[in-house]
Amino acid sequence: MTPLKIFSDPRLSPEILEVLRNGIAPHELMLPAKIAASVLEKSEADPAFAEADIAFGQPDLRSIYDSEKLKWIHTSTAGYTRYDTPEFREHVKKRGLIFTTSSGVYAEACAQHVFAFMLANSRQLPKSLVTRIPNGVPEWMALRASYSLLQGQSVLILGYGGIAERLVRMLAPFEMEITAVRRRPRGDEGVKVIGLEQVSEVLGTADHVINILPDNAESVGYFNDERFSAMKPGAVFYNIGRGTTVDQEALFRILSSGHLEAAWLDVTEPEPLPDDHPLWTLPNCHITPHTAGGHRNESLTMVRHFLGNFRRYVNGEALVDRMM
Amino acid sequence: MTPLKIFSDPRLSPEILEVLRNGIAPHELMLPAKIAASVLEKSEADPAFAEADIAFGQPDLRSIYDSEKLKWIHTSTAGYTRYDTPEFREHVKKRGLIFTTSSGVYAEACAQHVFAFMLANSRQLPKSLVTRIPNGVPEWMALRASYSLLQGQSVLILGYGGIAERLVRMLAPFEMEITAVRRRPRGDEGVKVIGLEQVSEVLGTADHVINILPDNAESVGYFNDERFSAMKPGAVFYNIGRGTTVDQEALFRILSSGHLEAAWLDVTEPEPLPDDHPLWTLPNCHITPHTAGGHRNESLTMVRHFLGNFRRYVNGEALVDRMM
Repeated sequence: MTPLKIFSDPRLSPEILEVLRNGIAPHELMLPAKIAASVLEKSEADPAFAEADIAFGQPDLRSIYDSEKLKWIHTSTAGYTRYDTPEFREHVKKRGLIFTTSSGVYAEACAQHVFAFMLANSRQLPKSLVTRIPNGVPEWMALRASYSLLQGQSVLILGYGGIAERLVRMLAPFEMEITAVRRRPRGDEGVKVIGLEQVSEVLGTADHVINILPDNAESVGYFNDERFSAMKPGAVFYNIGRGTTVDQEALFRILSSGHLEAAWLDVTEPEPLPDDHPLWTLPNCHITPHTAGGHRNESLTMVRHFLGNFRRYVNGEALVDRMM
Repeated sequence: MTPLKIFSDPRLSPEILEVLRNGIAPHELMLPAKIAASVLEKSEADPAFAEADIAFGQPDLRSIYDSEKLKWIHTSTAGYTRYDTPEFREHVKKRGLIFTTSSGVYAEACAQHVFAFMLANSRQLPKSLVTRIPNGVPEWMALRASYSLLQGQSVLILGYGGIAERLVRMLAPFEMEITAVRRRPRGDEGVKVIGLEQVSEVLGTADHVINILPDNAESVGYFNDERFSAMKPGAVFYNIGRGTTVDQEALFRILSSGHLEAAWLDVTEPEPLPDDHPLWTLPNCHITPHTAGGHRNESLTMVRHFLGNFRRYVNGEALVDRMM
């Protein structure tokens, strides 16, 4: 077998780069002249790309379209918005390309992040960690009474992939009523699954609405005034997917009105929100800076995940986290 | 059967008082002349107490010792420090009294509270919710890398009762290594249980040390300089039991030194800590104001829990949450 050429553009420490280099040997690693600061940024076009059999990272679209050698693309992220277009899908199909993502790398961390949001909300941590009220005063009674137990509450999860699967497993001990939404319900999800067209039937009954929708033409601005108003009074909204799926002005209006209890967001549009953005002024809007997928040794996990797929590729086996 | 007299001192709303009154009818409810503000405070001696068959709440010790009629005491709290003395236990034994607590009322909420602490720590929520760093900068990478997944980490739980049981169930999906400590291991706990004398063998290996020890002569100042120093570097300490079990000056020293990553406390000594207490100055010390057992409809749950035991008492069945 002629050695394969793997074009890899994620920014990696020298130690982890060696793990990658050793992991693919005797195949050849190609590095771009310039490496993007974040896995979320796309790479620039690089002349070496034309020689690559495999692209790992955030390869430039133009370079993909131009390449005659490329066979497999593996993104360094779980999301793949910039590749999720009819034009790209058509190209992948025509050229017989394989397209996989790092979904499995971030899913567990994302699920723990959104679950941390849920518990922080039910225990009112942002408020409880800054108060010094003494036992027994009316404010203390009110704080205790503002907490809720998860038992018996209902959860609606929009977007059923690796994150949702893991979240459902974490929620099992709490006897909640869980409904998940995916484009095409398969029936083997082990939880009640509905199609997007049925969301309006359940939106008004969920105590927790968890948005893991990817960013694509269908989902842009999905959570708008109409959908927020249709939610149950006192419900909590979480966004762990992409910021573009939420109309943030509508979110500001519904949070200000008190119709929703709170929102917990790991993603916004843009990121970070400008300092004068009205969402920063709301005490019931809690924002982390797109870090839900983060965890110790993240790059190493990502490289190992790619290497797992690389071994499968070389052995002619089916790849994991394949999207196209 | 002659109607029983139930002396009840918890502060209850008129609606919930009616639930209690209807629940025990045709037996007789006796209310004290003065009601304490908090369930954590003891009641004053009340002349009516001498007539009571059953005491529900935080009955005055002297009144219990003086009573010739009393048969059963049910505390409105899970903790029962003021009754947990050799003298009191001796009195209970001699008089053949039954002593039960509201443990079951607060256990689920307490377990969710400490689990919220664990996840808030692993996702670094206090830091992450106040930052506005943009994607990709070194501070962002560092924040993501400071998160940890629960998988593969180890947990040491001191005090194995209703809270620990529920916590163990919640941790099941995370494949952690759990060790619990109780005075007398029974062997049916479904988790590795050791006696207090073996704690020193495992203290140095636990990533999470969860203190649910009750307050008694044995446990006062249990977490001292020696035990904190014996903990694993980078471990996280949680206290959801009683503040007196921790030497807070030792805790301040170990948190300042960086030997422990963080402490999450729901209880302190005293409560709240004085405004000039050094623990308030530490960014890695997180404190909620003894609200872990709190949840919506808490008083109603507590009354229903008592009524469940009341029915059992009247029917001659074994009571739940019996401690003596």
